[in-house]
Amino acid sequence: MSLSEDSERLEGDLKGKKVCESRTAMTELVLPNDANTHGNVLGGKVMHLMDLAAAIAAFRHCRNPVVTVSVDSVRFLHPVKVGAVMMFEAVITRAFGTSMEIQVEVRSEDLITGEQMRTCSAYLTFVAIDEQGKPTSVPPILPETQEEKQRFEGALLRREHRLRLSSGEE
Amino acid sequence: MSLSEDSERLEGDLKGKKVCESRTAMTELVLPNDANTHGNVLGGKVMHLMDLAAAIAAFRHCRNPVVTVSVDSVRFLHPVKVGAVMMFEAVITRAFGTSMEIQVEVRSEDLITGEQMRTCSAYLTFVAIDEQGKPTSVPPILPETQEEKQRFEGALLRREHRLRLSSGEE
Amino acid sequence: MSLSEDSERLEGDLKGKKVCESRTAMTELVLPNDANTHGNVLGGKVMHLMDLAAAIAAFRHCRNPVVTVSVDSVRFLHPVKVGAVMMFEAVITRAFGTSMEIQVEVRSEDLITGEQMRTCSAYLTFVAIDEQGKPTSVPPILPETQEEKQRFEGALLRREHRLRLSSGEE
Amino acid sequence: MSLSEDSERLEGDLKGKKVCESRTAMTELVLPNDANTHGNVLGGKVMHLMDLAAAIAAFRHCRNPVVTVSVDSVRFLHPVKVGAVMMFEAVITRAFGTSMEIQVEVRSEDLITGEQMRTCSAYLTFVAIDEQGKPTSVPPILPETQEEKQRFEGALLRREHRLRLSSGEE
Amino acid sequence: MSLSEDSERLEGDLKGKKVCESRTAMTELVLPNDANTHGNVLGGKVMHLMDLAAAIAAFRHCRNPVVTVSVDSVRFLHPVKVGAVMMFEAVITRAFGTSMEIQVEVRSEDLITGEQMRTCSAYLTFVAIDEQGKPTSVPPILPETQEEKQRFEGALLRREHRLRLSSGEE
Amino acid sequence: MSLSEDSERLEGDLKGKKVCESRTAMTELVLPNDANTHGNVLGGKVMHLMDLAAAIAAFRHCRNPVVTVSVDSVRFLHPVKVGAVMMFEAVITRAFGTSMEIQVEVRSEDLITGEQMRTCSAYLTFVAIDEQGKPTSVPPILPETQEEKQRFEGALLRREHRLRLSSGEE
Repeated sequence: MSLSEDSERLEGDLKGKKVCESRTAMTELVLPNDANTHGNVLGGKVMHLMDLAAAIAAFRHCRNPVVTVSVDSVRFLHPVKVGAVMMFEAVITRAFGTSMEIQVEVRSEDLITGEQMRTCSAYLTFVAIDEQGKPTSVPPILPETQEEKQRFEGALLRREHRLRLSSGEE
Repeated sequence: MSLSEDSERLEGDLKGKKVCESRTAMTELVLPNDANTHGNVLGGKVMHLMDLAAAIAAFRHCRNPVVTVSVDSVRFLHPVKVGAVMMFEAVITRAFGTSMEIQVEVRSEDLITGEQMRTCSAYLTFVAIDEQGKPTSVPPILPETQEEKQRFEGALLRREHRLRLSSGEE
Repeated sequence: MSLSEDSERLEGDLKGKKVCESRTAMTELVLPNDANTHGNVLGGKVMHLMDLAAAIAAFRHCRNPVVTVSVDSVRFLHPVKVGAVMMFEAVITRAFGTSMEIQVEVRSEDLITGEQMRTCSAYLTFVAIDEQGKPTSVPPILPETQEEKQRFEGALLRREHRLRLSSGEE
Repeated sequence: MSLSEDSERLEGDLKGKKVCESRTAMTELVLPNDANTHGNVLGGKVMHLMDLAAAIAAFRHCRNPVVTVSVDSVRFLHPVKVGAVMMFEAVITRAFGTSMEIQVEVRSEDLITGEQMRTCSAYLTFVAIDEQGKPTSVPPILPETQEEKQRFEGALLRREHRLRLSSGEE
Repeated sequence: MSLSEDSERLEGDLKGKKVCESRTAMTELVLPNDANTHGNVLGGKVMHLMDLAAAIAAFRHCRNPVVTVSVDSVRFLHPVKVGAVMMFEAVITRAFGTSMEIQVEVRSEDLITGEQMRTCSAYLTFVAIDEQGKPTSVPPILPETQEEKQRFEGALLRREHRLRLSSGEE
Repeated sequence: MSLSEDSERLEGDLKGKKVCESRTAMTELVLPNDANTHGNVLGGKVMHLMDLAAAIAAFRHCRNPVVTVSVDSVRFLHPVKVGAVMMFEAVITRAFGTSMEIQVEVRSEDLITGEQMRTCSAYLTFVAIDEQGKPTSVPPILPETQEEKQRFEGALLRREHRLRLSSGEE
């Protein structure tokens, strides 16, 4: 039984939580070791930080340790230079039994000009883990704003797409 | 003009190269700082290393610096523990003008038992960059084995899927 | 001529900026390498991150590179454990010619219980540097809220105290 | 009950130790990741290393794990460049029941010219921790040289100043 | 009793293993923090990675944790630049009771030209450790190729040389 | 022409320097990421730090950047645990034209008991590099103490042994 099958269980009778209760904001200065010899940050470093921001948001929602189950496709819209600042914002979109979908938006800021650009965004899925390392139920989401409700609705379609991809894989 | 639009240019008259000429194998010991408090490696750390292996393979193919344009969805099939070893194998599947698709397969090995498991795999896309930071043509791929030919064919469909996703995004 | 003497110059005719324009929020997961063998984060690691958050806020205010001139005394109110999350919030309090005072507040969150505690706070002073590495004028601060105005007033006293300390030192 | 209140307990009947028994010298090469884009080491990195040197000296004095309670104000007298070497010297000045005051002096050396400069110095306070994580008594200090005796005397005043600061804070 | 004395025990009746079963290949991109201010990788960083590759090969051979007992002399044949790739290949040459000799060959590749050079090589000795931290027997080596047989024969002489060096030391 | 051949040039008419002018002392706390899963520091980490201490001593002697040419064999006399402190002391033994031999002695200290042990020692050879990256002459050594004179004499034999090893290699 794989982690994703476990996450099929329905949402239990845990009390719902709001999106804002687990929202996580990270700011990172791009250092030389994060970049290639042309001074562009490595895409993998950005993904590393996206996963970290998303994991903190997921942990805050369920108050249990979490493991990354999947990361949806990421497209980098522009290169980021050493000395720039990257801002990560992670919000939970929806909970499914033992799993949670988190959206991370990444923007970059040129500290000299102050110009900010959208760098990339992605949906990541986490499963909550109990003390025996088994998947455990997480509270449902109570979307409040229009944007939160749209992300909540969209989560269902994205999850079906993911399940189709992963079954096709095997 | 975004990086992905630049990569639309057709393959030039550069001499083709074989897949085996750029194949890249990495082995990594999972250290405590790569893991959460339960001793499971962070998914973002795995993606960081996948991008690194893929970037080296892409650089080796085109002999120009490269930047990550996109990473297709990744599904983690099992948790990896501190003290385990992860093996990354990156191969180029196809070149498209100034861009290259790279496949990375990740396996993990329990050093005590010797048991190896498939951890995850993904397709990443890179663009080659010249000295002015502009996209530059890369050599075409000459697939040899049956497996290389299948990945070469599949690359076209995966690329169309990616272009559809990214146009829908804007 | 030391850096602090340079910062004596009066505020020039640069247009004032609001505090919220440079406010910087950082979130950090405490990893094993940040801690001693008892799992308590090293105080120096916390100061490292305080300086980073403050430097980004100062850079955002003046849009010039900055160097740390001084850090006022820091008292750690409780130990922070590996696996906890630390939140840093840096705000500029006042500008003095070529220097800026930044306040950083640090809170810690136990990810299992959700309990948050005040960990420490400090005032740091930065000087803006031009392309020749010389101190350069920074925009004045326009405090808006009651809290911002109090910090703005207090900055004068704190600065006098610092100048007395540093003259006594020589 | 906070850590600093615990440190009020009087020195027990532990056998005194000399300052030279715990003196700690560290030498560090400044690497690119320790610096901003102008090649100046980050102030926070220097503070990180000061705390490390001081913590080793405190641990050596009391032979128990220690946690940082406070760091007095630090003024950076000049910028330090990538490729320079920093030297840290930490000495215990006085013990107070369960707490110790440590002085750290930092010098920098330009490896090409050999020129050395005083970079900064600070007083840090640590508390010794027993196996249950509770503050535990530390041996008193036996100052020998004239300099050690002066630092020993001064420690009383600095401690009173710190207690006044921290009570004013609450 | 030192670790090296323990390794004197004769090979037990463990079933032999082939060299290829534990062969380990590592690929590493040289990052700015691995180099001095002239952009040349530090020799110590190369040795760090040689030890890591060798330790994984030794662990794979005996399926027990290992500790480094000795590293034979290493000569660096050329400087390696930031942005180059280093390739490490570790093979076991022979087992002696509780110890194993591993050979690591290091090559470097200029990613722009594709030129590869031999950087250095060394023999390292590891001891296998059981759960109580005591040396434990390892399986003998079954050399297959001509090259493996030569390294197997040579290991005896190198070991005698090492034992003579270490007895002269005391 | 290899680096070691270049180092054959005779000592020029540079003014001699004393050993104490370049002596370098480093102290390092062993952190979790420096160790294997059994909490023993990796031998490669120790070699990394030995090379760093030796490189600083060599740089201080010649006041030119240096590159590591060779490291003589190292034998680890006991395992070092996470939480221990390692002390490195690097002294120049002799200069040969453009190259320098440095001895590094490593001791470890258990911070709880205060017990210190000899961990390992090695001789490393560095070449001084000018602005064009070419080997450049270094000042001769003026040994003062009996111990310095013995190391100075022994350096000649060690160098001959190294040259014999490296010619046999090619």
